[in-house]
Amino acid sequence: MELKLSELADRLELALDGDGDVVITGLAGFQDAGPGDLTFVDDPKLLKQLDDTRASAVILSQGHDVPVPALRTADPRAAFAAALGIYAPDADRYLQPGVHASASIDPSADLAADVAVGAGSVIGPGVSIGAGTRIAARVVIEADVTLGAECCLYSGSVIRERCRLGDRVILQPGAVIGSDGFGYHPGPAGLIKIPQIGIVVLEDEVEVGANSCVDRATTGETRIGVGTKIDNLCQVGHNVSVGRFCAMSALSGISGSCTLGDGVTMAGQTGVADHLTLGNGAKVGARSAVTRDVPDGMTVMGYPAVEFQKAFRLIAHYQRLPELAARVKELERRLEERSAPDHDSGEE
Amino acid sequence: MELKLSELADRLELALDGDGDVVITGLAGFQDAGPGDLTFVDDPKLLKQLDDTRASAVILSQGHDVPVPALRTADPRAAFAAALGIYAPDADRYLQPGVHASASIDPSADLAADVAVGAGSVIGPGVSIGAGTRIAARVVIEADVTLGAECCLYSGSVIRERCRLGDRVILQPGAVIGSDGFGYHPGPAGLIKIPQIGIVVLEDEVEVGANSCVDRATTGETRIGVGTKIDNLCQVGHNVSVGRFCAMSALSGISGSCTLGDGVTMAGQTGVADHLTLGNGAKVGARSAVTRDVPDGMTVMGYPAVEFQKAFRLIAHYQRLPELAARVKELERRLEERSAPDHDSGEE
Amino acid sequence: MELKLSELADRLELALDGDGDVVITGLAGFQDAGPGDLTFVDDPKLLKQLDDTRASAVILSQGHDVPVPALRTADPRAAFAAALGIYAPDADRYLQPGVHASASIDPSADLAADVAVGAGSVIGPGVSIGAGTRIAARVVIEADVTLGAECCLYSGSVIRERCRLGDRVILQPGAVIGSDGFGYHPGPAGLIKIPQIGIVVLEDEVEVGANSCVDRATTGETRIGVGTKIDNLCQVGHNVSVGRFCAMSALSGISGSCTLGDGVTMAGQTGVADHLTLGNGAKVGARSAVTRDVPDGMTVMGYPAVEFQKAFRLIAHYQRLPELAARVKELERRLEERSAPDHDSGEE
Repeated sequence: MELKLSELADRLELALDGDGDVVITGLAGFQDAGPGDLTFVDDPKLLKQLDDTRASAVILSQGHDVPVPALRTADPRAAFAAALGIYAPDADRYLQPGVHASASIDPSADLAADVAVGAGSVIGPGVSIGAGTRIAARVVIEADVTLGAECCLYSGSVIRERCRLGDRVILQPGAVIGSDGFGYHPGPAGLIKIPQIGIVVLEDEVEVGANSCVDRATTGETRIGVGTKIDNLCQVGHNVSVGRFCAMSALSGISGSCTLGDGVTMAGQTGVADHLTLGNGAKVGARSAVTRDVPDGMTVMGYPAVEFQKAFRLIAHYQRLPELAARVKELERRLEERSAPDHDSGEE
Repeated sequence: MELKLSELADRLELALDGDGDVVITGLAGFQDAGPGDLTFVDDPKLLKQLDDTRASAVILSQGHDVPVPALRTADPRAAFAAALGIYAPDADRYLQPGVHASASIDPSADLAADVAVGAGSVIGPGVSIGAGTRIAARVVIEADVTLGAECCLYSGSVIRERCRLGDRVILQPGAVIGSDGFGYHPGPAGLIKIPQIGIVVLEDEVEVGANSCVDRATTGETRIGVGTKIDNLCQVGHNVSVGRFCAMSALSGISGSCTLGDGVTMAGQTGVADHLTLGNGAKVGARSAVTRDVPDGMTVMGYPAVEFQKAFRLIAHYQRLPELAARVKELERRLEERSAPDHDSGEE
Repeated sequence: MELKLSELADRLELALDGDGDVVITGLAGFQDAGPGDLTFVDDPKLLKQLDDTRASAVILSQGHDVPVPALRTADPRAAFAAALGIYAPDADRYLQPGVHASASIDPSADLAADVAVGAGSVIGPGVSIGAGTRIAARVVIEADVTLGAECCLYSGSVIRERCRLGDRVILQPGAVIGSDGFGYHPGPAGLIKIPQIGIVVLEDEVEVGANSCVDRATTGETRIGVGTKIDNLCQVGHNVSVGRFCAMSALSGISGSCTLGDGVTMAGQTGVADHLTLGNGAKVGARSAVTRDVPDGMTVMGYPAVEFQKAFRLIAHYQRLPELAARVKELERRLEERSAPDHDSGEE
């Protein structure tokens, strides 16, 4: 794609500063940007390097001189994200319109007129799919699933029976929605499977990452709230309720029956034990594991996770343990010396 | 589904206490249960809330009065699990009988008469599948795999060549059985792949969770014993042997060549280093990593994992490190004061 | 497969020591080997058990007497790996030559003459695939992907649009290449998705494990260098650059924009925080999480990861915390005793 910078300025509704005839052929991060690229700067440290940029144009805030044409905005990152939308490849190329001849669609499924279904995808009986939803290749949507409008299901994702997805939901490749919750009952000869007859509800604008799993509820629902984003290889257990606008980074897990409020952030490789509540705005630091409820707005870290300032203090003490042990040894030595019956202590 | 409570009492073989004409339309956990629902109570804390239940009926043990009709049993949870089986949606709806026209079945595969194969599934040469096994959509079963009776393979699961599954095995969506073990040999120019020519054996009643992986052995077998349950996103390395009736929670991994006895429990996000032995009944606490053998019946925790009472004591000491450091500092101050030559110490 | 030991000696170019007419029907590790098996020994501890071996032949170094015929080499493990290649089942059996009738191949895709494509696989427009590449069942290769020669894509793997794979790349089942990076921008009403318009490049001889994910870059490339091996259930974030001949064990994650040098080793369940650099030959111990740059050749451990000798020392001190606390208490007691005004201290 090629656009003049002036055209981009119009489409992004940004102030143009410099030569609008520069042709922008691509977008790149600041360090990688070369001729033809539009980049952006919002990191003060990078501002100093502006004179050396090889980019053809830059998005940045007012008040900084640059040797190349610029688009001005108070939020360069947001404007760059919008520019990425303009330069994104045409979705029709890889999520082709229409229903592919090799897709298997049950006659009782109800698809809006413009739904796209890729090769080899399977849509079961009683499924309902809203307008503008695109389904890539080899997706499976089992019986009685309801999908809203303008969803995007990437290749290889699976939605098991009766789950409900809102509008504009995105499933990355291999995501699994509605697998059985991990529930067993101890019987006389081993574990007896507890049937998991509930469902999963993904509200509007939820995104689930590649190969992540959201288990169906034993009864009732496992629910992920509006706008919550789940990264790759995450696990959400049965009967969990996640609020709105949460973010969960890769390789993290939420055990069964937990409740997360709105705006909760879980960093990478974190975990939450079962039946816990994380309040609105709670944050879980990377690699941490939560073993008790977290109040609204608190950031926790470590395992077991504690308030993050305490966690940092504990880590600092931990890393000084050899010194602490040496100091104790020295105290013992000095005290021992004192205790010694009145021999000559001249060495001290 | 609608059943009178008296009908349920008959089918579950439970004593009915109260009005058997109440119509039960669904099942729900105690907190979520409303009109039409049957629920259960086995938690003494919940018994106090029985008077406020909105459920239409409750399963519980003898000796507790309730304001609604009840089914009585010494094990309410087991009875509720049985009731879930009654209310579970008809599997014929989402695991449809017969072989779908779009499935690819090699002519040399041997399927029992009533095997169900969903849309787009692929069954390779020499595969053998026992009676009553159901295969959902887009499952791949590669050459020479043997599957027992009454298995259930959910959509998108993959079994690679020559692996053997017993009876009543369940694979959740995206589970991978028989991927290559992670084995390389250092060569003059990088790592050389060691061919993994062994197989995986899943014994009867094994369940493997969504997107979990069990690697094939280098030679011989990776084996999972009768009735062992593996949660989502777990990894079992090559040549591992897991005993009977073990349970492994999400995001856990067992490294190559480990041996687990019977009844071993691994909580979420746990790991076991390679070539270790975990004895019968060993338990690994959440988020723990095992670096040495664990004897029969021992519960371990932490990283490196130690006996759990010691682990808890260590955590308690860890969390008091700032206080310990302060006490050492105070000891140093006091000793310093003493050591000082006889100046005026009136400030003390 | 049956081969005389003398034939194996020829094909492996090893010195034969003993009866070459012994028939070798299989390969097995030392402990499992029985009649008909060839095994190997390179562990000095196992040499003592050689007299008890039930194997029909053994690969080992010179200078050790054995009761069975032997193949001699300075590197028994490498020779055994080569023998595994000889006994590996014929790939034509499970990765069948030719293009299966049920595969969906876009007319604009360009496949070398001998490319194998299994049942139900989907190859999008503009895809290019090199000679000798084998694609199993139900693989999806989306628009404009480039694949080199002699790759092997196992069933259920997915490559999203425009990614590029070199020669001899292996994807285990369920691997996902080119899923969207986890990038969002805080907006007035929740997180706004940042389009991820970059790609993934896997260089020659890269292997990606079952259900592992490599995210596409926001702009530019996520790149995995020649010969790097990634185990199952690993996550590689957007814009990461991994060098050559690295190894990453199961359930590990690399956050966005990290740079790994050549020969980096990440053990199981490890993590690297975003924007970090790990130098050539850096090693990350099992279960560790890296929160700052690691210089060339350094081995780190723990969380936050520190140089491994320090990490081991810290663990040792941690495990002695109860004793340290007891010593501090004893010091306090003794000092308290001293401080006491001159009462009778006869009890001591």
